[in-house]
Amino acid sequence: MEIVLSPTVKDVAREARVSVGTVSRVLARNETVNPGIRQRVEEVIARLGYRPSSLGRSLRLNKSDIIGLIIPDITNPFFAELAKHLETLASAAGYSVLLANTHDDPKAECKQVQSLLCRVPAGIVIAPVSGSLVGGILPDGLVSVTIDRPLTGHSLVAVDNFEGGRLAASHLLELGHRRIGYISGPTTTDVSIQRLNGFRGRVEEASSDRAQDLVQLTVLEGNFDYKSGEAIGRKLLQGNVGRRPTAIATANDQQAIGLLRASRDLGIRVPEDLSIVGFDDIPLASLVLPRLTTVRQPIEEIAEIAIRALLGSGPIVGPIALRPALVERDSTAPPPAC
Amino acid sequence: MEIVLSPTVKDVAREARVSVGTVSRVLARNETVNPGIRQRVEEVIARLGYRPSSLGRSLRLNKSDIIGLIIPDITNPFFAELAKHLETLASAAGYSVLLANTHDDPKAECKQVQSLLCRVPAGIVIAPVSGSLVGGILPDGLVSVTIDRPLTGHSLVAVDNFEGGRLAASHLLELGHRRIGYISGPTTTDVSIQRLNGFRGRVEEASSDRAQDLVQLTVLEGNFDYKSGEAIGRKLLQGNVGRRPTAIATANDQQAIGLLRASRDLGIRVPEDLSIVGFDDIPLASLVLPRLTTVRQPIEEIAEIAIRALLGSGPIVGPIALRPALVERDSTAPPPAC
Repeated sequence: MEIVLSPTVKDVAREARVSVGTVSRVLARNETVNPGIRQRVEEVIARLGYRPSSLGRSLRLNKSDIIGLIIPDITNPFFAELAKHLETLASAAGYSVLLANTHDDPKAECKQVQSLLCRVPAGIVIAPVSGSLVGGILPDGLVSVTIDRPLTGHSLVAVDNFEGGRLAASHLLELGHRRIGYISGPTTTDVSIQRLNGFRGRVEEASSDRAQDLVQLTVLEGNFDYKSGEAIGRKLLQGNVGRRPTAIATANDQQAIGLLRASRDLGIRVPEDLSIVGFDDIPLASLVLPRLTTVRQPIEEIAEIAIRALLGSGPIVGPIALRPALVERDSTAPPPAC
Repeated sequence: MEIVLSPTVKDVAREARVSVGTVSRVLARNETVNPGIRQRVEEVIARLGYRPSSLGRSLRLNKSDIIGLIIPDITNPFFAELAKHLETLASAAGYSVLLANTHDDPKAECKQVQSLLCRVPAGIVIAPVSGSLVGGILPDGLVSVTIDRPLTGHSLVAVDNFEGGRLAASHLLELGHRRIGYISGPTTTDVSIQRLNGFRGRVEEASSDRAQDLVQLTVLEGNFDYKSGEAIGRKLLQGNVGRRPTAIATANDQQAIGLLRASRDLGIRVPEDLSIVGFDDIPLASLVLPRLTTVRQPIEEIAEIAIRALLGSGPIVGPIALRPALVERDSTAPPPAC
């Protein structure tokens, strides 16, 4: 398929009876071009109404005004929000965003990044997959910002996931829950491990604080999606009222929404019989029934820091850990009396 | 900020003591280059390990392997799903997707499209805003696919929205509802008007069929988001049980999810007191409480047709209207007995 957005540099070259290279040199104001030829080329450019594309400019500067955004999944509302904020900020600065989904596959990620590098981006924003191989192929000098998930040797902008896990645990413990479940993300990803470790650490502190009132914690691993929350929720909620958890925390809001679904199907009322805490605070969290108590990530702030690093202040030195916040809504309450 | 992904075409030119234009001609296997110079340039290319970027290739062909995707809002799950499918298909064919959000603003849209055209895309996929000004600036010869919403003079790939509206109305009428509400999208967009006209037309047919059993229809206009569904839902559900609607249809699933929220807050049970029908069938529709009855759009099919048109079979001739389907779940039931 050949697309011609006429007139092209070739049309100019043909009309002016010079090579494409000569037209390029005229456009680049290269002094080596014979003045007579320069005048002829400029006349043809004016007559044909030729305008050099940004591709040509990019080639001359050896960079483009494209920002690459590499994320696991655009249908995860957290990444969709992030993409929207990044794109809005980039667009205001005259840059465009190239979107690449990696579907949490290191090989797909490598292919996407290689294809992106061929376009010589002004910079990239990446939320790497677990086991990412990308660290090895990013060229020196390319400004990149790693968000959400770390990449060895690159500085990370992310919420303090460990602290976020602690906040969720503290909230449930303060409400009086002692049989608690936790649905983690894939334990191959750092973000999952940090949230889980924060949560578990806070629960263990509480257990050692009060030996007579031991906290029982069941952890099951899932993916960061609705289905996983629903399926693992069902497993955690098997068994009778006296044995199953009275509260479950999840590693993201999508899992929590899937868990709400499972609870409803099993006839378990939220928050009367079961408290649920999510993570992220996607817009949907305040809309589902009941409204979700969750740990808020400052998505807009992450986008702003990333864009500033790419377009203004230069590479980020050292990791930036943003503060999470517990947002208390209607999905948590004290455990049932029994 | 200057990014250097060394070595560049300039490095090659300097090392080989020729102009950048000459290096370009060597790379393009242009026969006009002196064989001695050609050999020298090729040696330098091999020695430096220079690889031409796709920017250069794009310039020579005067097109890029970029596909532009211009949508109102990536945080709308319908567009996020569509973006995912398009990006997956494009990536498999060696193309990348440039994402642009227009926030339903014709001026923002024009700016985004102009910036995209500077990159000489292989084609664009656009869901135009209402009052779009883009029709005038798309160059002849650019392959573009209009999805979801029409653009004058361009062929549209979309679900049959009129038929979708009819399906929703038929379902509610067959369940026995006679006091019905409808939350439309912005009536400046064709997609909203089509869905509403289909719905209203079917209701009017039913009213004329049975003069003694008149159907009462209240239509309020909103935006395609959660908040709008919640706020307008509250308005429609004001008044006592005997006067308010026993069923409400919405122009998309996000509105329906907002409406579910409003119903819950007002103590109105779904589907016992109120039936709700959405539109789109986003993944969330089968997860909310209760699971949403909705009109399904074939999102994957829309993405496939768009990519085929851009990369394979050429421009679409005449509009393509895909069949919607009613997906019956738990948010609809016969009206309360009273």
